[in-house]
Amino acid sequence: MQTVRVNLGPRSYDIALTSTDPAGFAAFARRAAPKAKLALVVTDANVISHASTVASGLQSVGIHSQTAVVPAGEASKSVARLEALYDALAELPADRGTLVVAVGGGVVGDLGGFAAATYNRGLPLLMVPTTLLAMVDSSVGGKTGVNHPKGKNLIGSFHQPAGVWIDTAYLASLPDREFRSGLAEVVKYGVIQDPEFFEYLEANAAAILARRPDTLVHIVARSCRLKADVVEQDEREETGLRAILNYGHTFAHGYETVGGYGAWLHGEAVAAGMVGESRLAERLGRIPVAVTDRQVRLLTAFGLPIAGKPEWATEALIDVMRRDKKSQAGKLRFVLPTRLGHVELVDGVSEDLVREVLRT
Amino acid sequence: MQTVRVNLGPRSYDIALTSTDPAGFAAFARRAAPKAKLALVVTDANVISHASTVASGLQSVGIHSQTAVVPAGEASKSVARLEALYDALAELPADRGTLVVAVGGGVVGDLGGFAAATYNRGLPLLMVPTTLLAMVDSSVGGKTGVNHPKGKNLIGSFHQPAGVWIDTAYLASLPDREFRSGLAEVVKYGVIQDPEFFEYLEANAAAILARRPDTLVHIVARSCRLKADVVEQDEREETGLRAILNYGHTFAHGYETVGGYGAWLHGEAVAAGMVGESRLAERLGRIPVAVTDRQVRLLTAFGLPIAGKPEWATEALIDVMRRDKKSQAGKLRFVLPTRLGHVELVDGVSEDLVREVLRT
Repeated sequence: MQTVRVNLGPRSYDIALTSTDPAGFAAFARRAAPKAKLALVVTDANVISHASTVASGLQSVGIHSQTAVVPAGEASKSVARLEALYDALAELPADRGTLVVAVGGGVVGDLGGFAAATYNRGLPLLMVPTTLLAMVDSSVGGKTGVNHPKGKNLIGSFHQPAGVWIDTAYLASLPDREFRSGLAEVVKYGVIQDPEFFEYLEANAAAILARRPDTLVHIVARSCRLKADVVEQDEREETGLRAILNYGHTFAHGYETVGGYGAWLHGEAVAAGMVGESRLAERLGRIPVAVTDRQVRLLTAFGLPIAGKPEWATEALIDVMRRDKKSQAGKLRFVLPTRLGHVELVDGVSEDLVREVLRT
Repeated sequence: MQTVRVNLGPRSYDIALTSTDPAGFAAFARRAAPKAKLALVVTDANVISHASTVASGLQSVGIHSQTAVVPAGEASKSVARLEALYDALAELPADRGTLVVAVGGGVVGDLGGFAAATYNRGLPLLMVPTTLLAMVDSSVGGKTGVNHPKGKNLIGSFHQPAGVWIDTAYLASLPDREFRSGLAEVVKYGVIQDPEFFEYLEANAAAILARRPDTLVHIVARSCRLKADVVEQDEREETGLRAILNYGHTFAHGYETVGGYGAWLHGEAVAAGMVGESRLAERLGRIPVAVTDRQVRLLTAFGLPIAGKPEWATEALIDVMRRDKKSQAGKLRFVLPTRLGHVELVDGVSEDLVREVLRT
């Protein structure tokens, strides 16, 4: 078992990674929440079997649990589903030591995490991500939340987990498209923070796509470490540093909104978004074309899109970007590379330049 | 203008107190939220005139605001009202710099505060309490939340405000019963932390009841300072210290639940609760009867109840106490005085002893 430590003072926690020791979960859960007697396991219909393994593990260390199953898919990140979790917690009945265990992808983690963040002003939370995207991104860093009709993740809070348990063996059964989508965020860490990791991904693309267990543990562990490095320095997105994680995400947000949630998976939107924003950096004279080209080649090797769909109207995309959380007073703001392995927050990017990139 | 500083590292803030300088609000708001351009003012139907003064003040420093009015009363602390505030924020549209200003009593503060805590993962919050209870208790310390059918404040989070503006002139028009109810929490600070303050209250009861402006500023400022001393040491109720603020509240919770929210005001329940818990401390040999007697006399002088209503069934009260947030695995836990000015958390109090106190 490998461990990535997230150092956040009193809110520090471990991310445990394994591909061979599923039974280690029970002891990890006990260590993460030493006093818990009760747990609510939140999961979705697709991964109920993983949730039931988790529940058995909890039982073996004296934590009795109930399971709340939500429908798979983004629609479950709603205030209505959140209320159902509050009801389930009240039914248990949960006290302040009751553990919430989120077994699933980003939707389950965000929803279950937000219930944990806000029930009784905060319950201990254990993340058990079952998708690559959740393993390398949403399970780490403490962001939780649900959607509002006016915007994704508009309602939420920061709530660091007590622990994250990552068993990459779960990835063996992940549908191909979801697996590839998760790789987009992995590539992102290389571009924004670690050129050697980017090279590793280039050199090992075939092993990654073949889902070789040791390779998977490595890329997930490295991604978690890189994300943790950022989160440790800017836990609540206050200094601006954490914004670097949004590389590719301003364009992606446009694609997801205009395409409609579900047209593309999040990672697909991020892949095309990174290429778009990299081209923007080129036009601003910040990077040579080669930096974009390497991303295009790697993302293509991973079977990911490198541009938005032609039917998505440029003005609609720009309009979404204007309303992005990063934008201030309507001015466009992007996280742009200055070289492979480093990005900067760039203010006041001209909409015409963005239009140009979107149209090419 | 007096200032009480709440030191919480990056979440530090000022509580400004005045009885003579209402116009100081605008500059205070600007300092508390230097970048805000937009605000949502949350208020209730009873204090709309105060809210409109606040909105004018905000406008004078360039903060344009919309006002969301909720019905007065505990029923507004609901997920449904919360959703309406999310909608109002989305309509503005709020960005991360948008200020939420809660103008009202505890209900408005808790509800508006929780909306601020959870919209966009946290918006700056300005508290403008208009009741004595909100001034000395709920506006300070960062607790926000709404009710669940299974329990008060079951859904919520910690979200420190960017500032608290207290104009005790608002108290001139507060209904007598509400004013007296607020005094219960003021008395509480004397019992749990400050015997000299308790003596001050005894010596100045008439001036307090006459709402003499200088006296009001003094008791509110001292109460805020005493609460801040606790919150600074245990911001998120983790070390157990913050629990001392719950003196009188275990019994009070029983009275409020069995009596039905609304039978008694919160402070009335706390007054009778303090006397009950003080008697419990007597029976455990922790304090002489004189400590209870002084509380009884002061609370009586303030026109507050000193025992529950005879029709409230003992077993029903015990049952609520057993489910109290402080209780663990069904064992009763109380905050009990050891002398005037000091309390301790006491575990495993026998239910029979509680029954005895409830029946006398």
